[in-house]
Amino acid sequence: MSIQVGIIMGSKSDLPIMKDAADILKEFDIQFEMTVVSAHRTPERMFEYAKNAASRGLKVIIAGAGGAAHLPGMVASITTLPVIGVPVKSSNSIDGWDSILSILQMPNGIPVATVALNAAKNAGLLAAQILATASPELSAKMQAYKDDLKKKIEESAIDLENY
Amino acid sequence: MSIQVGIIMGSKSDLPIMKDAADILKEFDIQFEMTVVSAHRTPERMFEYAKNAASRGLKVIIAGAGGAAHLPGMVASITTLPVIGVPVKSSNSIDGWDSILSILQMPNGIPVATVALNAAKNAGLLAAQILATASPELSAKMQAYKDDLKKKIEESAIDLENY
Amino acid sequence: MSIQVGIIMGSKSDLPIMKDAADILKEFDIQFEMTVVSAHRTPERMFEYAKNAASRGLKVIIAGAGGAAHLPGMVASITTLPVIGVPVKSSNSIDGWDSILSILQMPNGIPVATVALNAAKNAGLLAAQILATASPELSAKMQAYKDDLKKKIEESAIDLENY
Amino acid sequence: MSIQVGIIMGSKSDLPIMKDAADILKEFDIQFEMTVVSAHRTPERMFEYAKNAASRGLKVIIAGAGGAAHLPGMVASITTLPVIGVPVKSSNSIDGWDSILSILQMPNGIPVATVALNAAKNAGLLAAQILATASPELSAKMQAYKDDLKKKIEESAIDLENY
Amino acid sequence: MSIQVGIIMGSKSDLPIMKDAADILKEFDIQFEMTVVSAHRTPERMFEYAKNAASRGLKVIIAGAGGAAHLPGMVASITTLPVIGVPVKSSNSIDGWDSILSILQMPNGIPVATVALNAAKNAGLLAAQILATASPELSAKMQAYKDDLKKKIEESAIDLENY
Amino acid sequence: MSIQVGIIMGSKSDLPIMKDAADILKEFDIQFEMTVVSAHRTPERMFEYAKNAASRGLKVIIAGAGGAAHLPGMVASITTLPVIGVPVKSSNSIDGWDSILSILQMPNGIPVATVALNAAKNAGLLAAQILATASPELSAKMQAYKDDLKKKIEESAIDLENY
Amino acid sequence: MSIQVGIIMGSKSDLPIMKDAADILKEFDIQFEMTVVSAHRTPERMFEYAKNAASRGLKVIIAGAGGAAHLPGMVASITTLPVIGVPVKSSNSIDGWDSILSILQMPNGIPVATVALNAAKNAGLLAAQILATASPELSAKMQAYKDDLKKKIEESAIDLENY
Amino acid sequence: MSIQVGIIMGSKSDLPIMKDAADILKEFDIQFEMTVVSAHRTPERMFEYAKNAASRGLKVIIAGAGGAAHLPGMVASITTLPVIGVPVKSSNSIDGWDSILSILQMPNGIPVATVALNAAKNAGLLAAQILATASPELSAKMQAYKDDLKKKIEESAIDLENY
Repeated sequence: MSIQVGIIMGSKSDLPIMKDAADILKEFDIQFEMTVVSAHRTPERMFEYAKNAASRGLKVIIAGAGGAAHLPGMVASITTLPVIGVPVKSSNSIDGWDSILSILQMPNGIPVATVALNAAKNAGLLAAQILATASPELSAKMQAYKDDLKKKIEESAIDLENY
Repeated sequence: MSIQVGIIMGSKSDLPIMKDAADILKEFDIQFEMTVVSAHRTPERMFEYAKNAASRGLKVIIAGAGGAAHLPGMVASITTLPVIGVPVKSSNSIDGWDSILSILQMPNGIPVATVALNAAKNAGLLAAQILATASPELSAKMQAYKDDLKKKIEESAIDLENY
Repeated sequence: MSIQVGIIMGSKSDLPIMKDAADILKEFDIQFEMTVVSAHRTPERMFEYAKNAASRGLKVIIAGAGGAAHLPGMVASITTLPVIGVPVKSSNSIDGWDSILSILQMPNGIPVATVALNAAKNAGLLAAQILATASPELSAKMQAYKDDLKKKIEESAIDLENY
Repeated sequence: MSIQVGIIMGSKSDLPIMKDAADILKEFDIQFEMTVVSAHRTPERMFEYAKNAASRGLKVIIAGAGGAAHLPGMVASITTLPVIGVPVKSSNSIDGWDSILSILQMPNGIPVATVALNAAKNAGLLAAQILATASPELSAKMQAYKDDLKKKIEESAIDLENY
Repeated sequence: MSIQVGIIMGSKSDLPIMKDAADILKEFDIQFEMTVVSAHRTPERMFEYAKNAASRGLKVIIAGAGGAAHLPGMVASITTLPVIGVPVKSSNSIDGWDSILSILQMPNGIPVATVALNAAKNAGLLAAQILATASPELSAKMQAYKDDLKKKIEESAIDLENY
Repeated sequence: MSIQVGIIMGSKSDLPIMKDAADILKEFDIQFEMTVVSAHRTPERMFEYAKNAASRGLKVIIAGAGGAAHLPGMVASITTLPVIGVPVKSSNSIDGWDSILSILQMPNGIPVATVALNAAKNAGLLAAQILATASPELSAKMQAYKDDLKKKIEESAIDLENY
Repeated sequence: MSIQVGIIMGSKSDLPIMKDAADILKEFDIQFEMTVVSAHRTPERMFEYAKNAASRGLKVIIAGAGGAAHLPGMVASITTLPVIGVPVKSSNSIDGWDSILSILQMPNGIPVATVALNAAKNAGLLAAQILATASPELSAKMQAYKDDLKKKIEESAIDLENY
Repeated sequence: MSIQVGIIMGSKSDLPIMKDAADILKEFDIQFEMTVVSAHRTPERMFEYAKNAASRGLKVIIAGAGGAAHLPGMVASITTLPVIGVPVKSSNSIDGWDSILSILQMPNGIPVATVALNAAKNAGLLAAQILATASPELSAKMQAYKDDLKKKIEESAIDLENY
């Protein structure tokens, strides 16, 4: 199957956070690519990436950035694909507030599907849920994933009750 | 075509905000339903709604709520469908911060695709983008929508330059 | 005497905070149970727990959670018992603001008795105060507890004055 | 039946908010008293009120205040009764943040059961829930109240679906 | 003399704020142009504007935007000219915090000279100060402007002293 | 000379911050006393301390506390002496915001002279300035202190210029 | 008696707030002067005012300002007199946060006695308390003022109890 | 060539942050001076520095400060040169919010070109951009700098794609 999800980040230093998106996509056997695209340092590259994403066959883009995080919103302004934004609490961020507000507060017409601070794992899951809207197989895997979450909590509950 | 998007809100008082989602879905000829489901006042109803959404054929759920806004996250905990959360700046909200944080900051495993404060229009557009991942026709409409946004800005630019 | 207080938390990782509630209840000889109930990962379990709490003889529920903390509010939506919410500053929390606002800002009709960030000890004391409204014995213990707090401060005052 | 709940507020200007607590207590046929007690302008009166509350037969105190809101916490420091704090968004408050933090962030040993900003109605309900822990009759009324909330939402849902 | 300052804004609705920049530039006899350029709705137009600004003879760009305000930072990423950012408290902004943080918190390498919320007048003055670094004439005008500010305060002081 | 300044703190754990007030008073040869007075754990003691402060000859009270910091405001409500409040960033504080707002936002009629977060040194200096309003000798010392601050900056400037 | 308190403000537009300080000083028969001194628009005037305040016989300075409010801190840096800062929620302020933090967060060595947002009345009272440290007469008036506050609350309590 | 940029800071402890401005100016072969000027501890020195900066030949001033950061704004009030403000997250700062708001929120008439928290590097770049408005040579260097940023991102992208 072809690559369906593009994971991009504003700086290589976002990788420790953003690789959680890659890991969860692997777990769901979804093909993805991952690269660095900086809205501020490589605006043309960002432009090209967003412009060609749909024609290259991508279905969803996950974009992570910190501080004045313009990458998710700018990519969303250029592509028609759904864009998932991951606010990264980078070293130059004010406790993550700047990252969150720069990604979340997009104007009417240009949505970005924002997840929690540093929540690249949830970005990967959301991408899987989006793809699952057209794939019964993925949908079943998602149900199994949720069942597994439940089981883990139930086990930890037993642990705690015996505490 | 069957109903593809469910729009739910915690209170009828959220309708003036949430109807923007309905309006944009109509513009894209996407079938939707709209109702009131309160996580706090009708927990069983919320549970049933979320539990049956996928089997009833829904593809995406848009959930709006204000204050300690638990509806989007709780629905996301029960369904495998992508859930789009709209933080509503309701009268009991502290400038919208409570609505945003209660919806956005979901734990790992349970994403909610959060849009800007009161941005039900963007929630509708995001739902359309998600459905467009499996529909070239919707994808083309989305491109046309973006082209139209561009044209309007260019017209207002001419207005302003002649100002 | 039967179990009177249920202590629940969204994740086993909240135990280092939440055990302070257990410790203070032990100090007051109040029977309690403690387990993990996740609103987001085990919504049915949460539902059952809240539904049956009163009929199982519980009088008060203490619920701790972090981030988009929906557990206290959702339990309060289902049970008629008083629910005490403990905002936990978990690793995925934005300095605790999300935990606090998600628990505190409940809509009219569904109160949660919120205590300070990480203040599980105060949650235990509040549970004891609630039970003491119908128990002169507990009420006397509460007075003794307060007298002891006073004595400790007075002793530390003497220490400091001799500093 | 004797007076069970004391409703106090830092200023008469808090009455438009605080009377919601009185209204809900009336609805539950719970006897209450209501007066002005200012921690800052009448510290001795506050002291006496808190000191004598339990011996006068009160079971719960509801205290509302705005700005640097010390009334709930100071009353809680003196009485052993459960104290419910209502942060009031008064004219001298910074969007309510000062009222909330001054009431919520009590130190270990002295809990205040804090409800949402301006949520005096929820304070009244919480007082009723506390009293209901020792009263099957009140407990049944609370269940009826919740059933009524549910019915109202279901009716508004039908309205909206026909919208 | 040729056009030296470009004033751009993300939406025509920003004009009531942004025209203060135009007014002050007129007062200093500095040639400027003013138009609408939306980073999100007309990304190519934004790109072209920024790319050609220097070769068209502009010396400074003033860019105003609200919410997730990406215009100043994106223009700064493309041009080598100094870019002055005006955070606009637009209707979709959260008290201006999103506008401020999205403009101010630019990463290393791409500065935006940010002024106060809605302070388009100061943006115009800053542009004049920048141009004055190479123009003794403008520099003298700036000194006269400051002297005038001082005189007005001194007059209002006399008014107040006679109050 | 008699004791002129009382330094009180809500907990012995505030001493590492509050001793800066003591140190600066020593530097100015101002007699002071220092003790622990908790508004919440020893309300009567707090009451007595504040009530008797003026008649015992104190001229100024410095009160430090963290979290829901009621000590400075409550003491100010009881005494007519000027009260200087030091917001302490204690372990149970939310980045100091609760401490600051609980001390600063006092209602009309009851001022607290609030200094910066953890700025017990400035509290001591402010006490000295207050006493200096009636003491030419202290006033001269204050001028010398300021001159010394200036000299230190000028020396560090020379260091840096040679850097 | 000579002028003892100087009330200054950054702009004549601060007068509706700052006149509360004047009114309370009149009530206490304390001589004062009131004028406009802008740190930013009349820096030399500010400098002169602060430099000469003590030698002109002033004992206390009350300075009000909004936004990036530098007036209180700059005056405090130049004079040895106690400076009381009033954060004004002016039209260019972000809900008052900028005014508060610019005045409160002074570095070690240069205290400003900060009062609540817009609380010029409390600034006047604090000035009176400072002068009262050397005046038994003023001290007695302050006690009478407090007694009066108490009486008013007690009267409003009776009103409310009969409500 | 003569000294064109003055870098000043409120305290020598700001040097680890502020030296990034010096380093980038060196990289662009721009002559600068660097010293300590404290608005609060050496107000006369600050006054003299700002007063003489233009006549000494400086073109731009970079001023860094933390907490109630008055240095950039006060210097801007005295000189007609463009002033770049660097909010420093110093030890006495509340997560940098005080530093940012004290520098950014200047009143109409007195702009400060504010950069991100701790972003002295961007302050240096902005100074270079300002000087480049009158220097084609500097302008070319700026373009080369931007090209270099781009190349580094492209290299890290290749690294990551091979990850």
